[in-house]
Amino acid sequence: MNRYRIDISYDGTRYSGWQIQPGAPSIQGELEKALRRLSAQTPRVHGSGRTDRGVHARKQVAHFDTEKTFDAGRLVKGANAVLPHDIRVMKAAPVSSNFHARYSVRRKEYRYFISRARVISPFLSRYRTRATPDIDIEAMKKAASYLTGNHDFAAYTANANRDVKTTFCTLNELRVTARGNDVIITARAPGFLYKMVRSLAGILLRVGEGAATPSETGKILYSRKRTARVPTAPARGLFLWNVMYR
Amino acid sequence: MNRYRIDISYDGTRYSGWQIQPGAPSIQGELEKALRRLSAQTPRVHGSGRTDRGVHARKQVAHFDTEKTFDAGRLVKGANAVLPHDIRVMKAAPVSSNFHARYSVRRKEYRYFISRARVISPFLSRYRTRATPDIDIEAMKKAASYLTGNHDFAAYTANANRDVKTTFCTLNELRVTARGNDVIITARAPGFLYKMVRSLAGILLRVGEGAATPSETGKILYSRKRTARVPTAPARGLFLWNVMYR
Repeated sequence: MNRYRIDISYDGTRYSGWQIQPGAPSIQGELEKALRRLSAQTPRVHGSGRTDRGVHARKQVAHFDTEKTFDAGRLVKGANAVLPHDIRVMKAAPVSSNFHARYSVRRKEYRYFISRARVISPFLSRYRTRATPDIDIEAMKKAASYLTGNHDFAAYTANANRDVKTTFCTLNELRVTARGNDVIITARAPGFLYKMVRSLAGILLRVGEGAATPSETGKILYSRKRTARVPTAPARGLFLWNVMYR
Repeated sequence: MNRYRIDISYDGTRYSGWQIQPGAPSIQGELEKALRRLSAQTPRVHGSGRTDRGVHARKQVAHFDTEKTFDAGRLVKGANAVLPHDIRVMKAAPVSSNFHARYSVRRKEYRYFISRARVISPFLSRYRTRATPDIDIEAMKKAASYLTGNHDFAAYTANANRDVKTTFCTLNELRVTARGNDVIITARAPGFLYKMVRSLAGILLRVGEGAATPSETGKILYSRKRTARVPTAPARGLFLWNVMYR
């Protein structure tokens, strides 16, 4: 058996998410269909993790096993020739059977894009969440500082008891930066809980809009209870940005 | 009567072009529908010119007359609230009746975007035409130098006798620049013939790929005959970039 790693980029707008499911277009499903056409087999494609409906990926990583031997360049070309244009295999490489797209992850980075433009360009509207032009970035930065570190993030995940053993995790970085009309939230961790980044973006947006104070984010964290005070920010602003491996 | 100028940006992918036509979605049609909802009248929207099926606009300019009086900021907000997300009114302003979106044009700028990336990102695939990574930019620059100036461009338009009085025009600038993986063709003129920019991009692409020599672009120009040697480059790479007024 040969194992291949593929680095994938996708516009999630049209998809029900990463995970294959009957009757709904998925990234995993499209990749498996493409590989079936290339290899006359049906390899299972294992991703670094799921992304939800409408979430994008600048860089998602996956692996698959096959009895066939592929030249990496041809695998990229062949897959892109049959994939829809909103899913691209950017790179491919043979890897040892020790590599696992999910279990070998060292760290993941997500970026959440907010636009404070008065009118969002039609070329960006699928990739930005709207905010008022006077959104308070300093307050968002302060709020973010309460959330980094090793905490129980039960208050910032959806369906906390959804087959997860623990809601503790280490948020290595949660940074708010401004670039032109964009406000970008960068989150780095070895792993994230279900809808955690969009929950963090949701509370930071509320702080930026003056609907919550920076220190409230800490109080909510320590409550360990998800309530309506934490909205889930829209999927369209979220990108899986990078996956780093051991 | 009040006249308003609107500056519009659109992703042309889903549209049959600027011009309204029965049974096909058009930019002009969507704008008139939006204004009908705002003004309870049906003002005709006059654009600076037509763009073809699939062509984008970073900045298109139009005007319309109405008996209503609009606050400019509310006109922008109101129109964008009812327009589809791939068409945005970026600005609006009251103008005198001397201003005409088409007849007052001093100069127009188009940009044609070519990607020489080995794999085009899914976030750019609707806005780039593909080229080989080793496309010869110096040859394209040389070829462009044969085309600027005041010429009969009959060889670089489609259906030259399509209700135009003359195929002479002044191409003030035709520039080829490289920026990262992009090769950008910038064309500036007081006016362009039908499919002229895509024909110029078509021959420059052929030169870049080695299928024509730079000086052949001049020979084709002087032949004044459109032939199969000049392909029409795909719409997706083309942006109406700017419209400048007297």
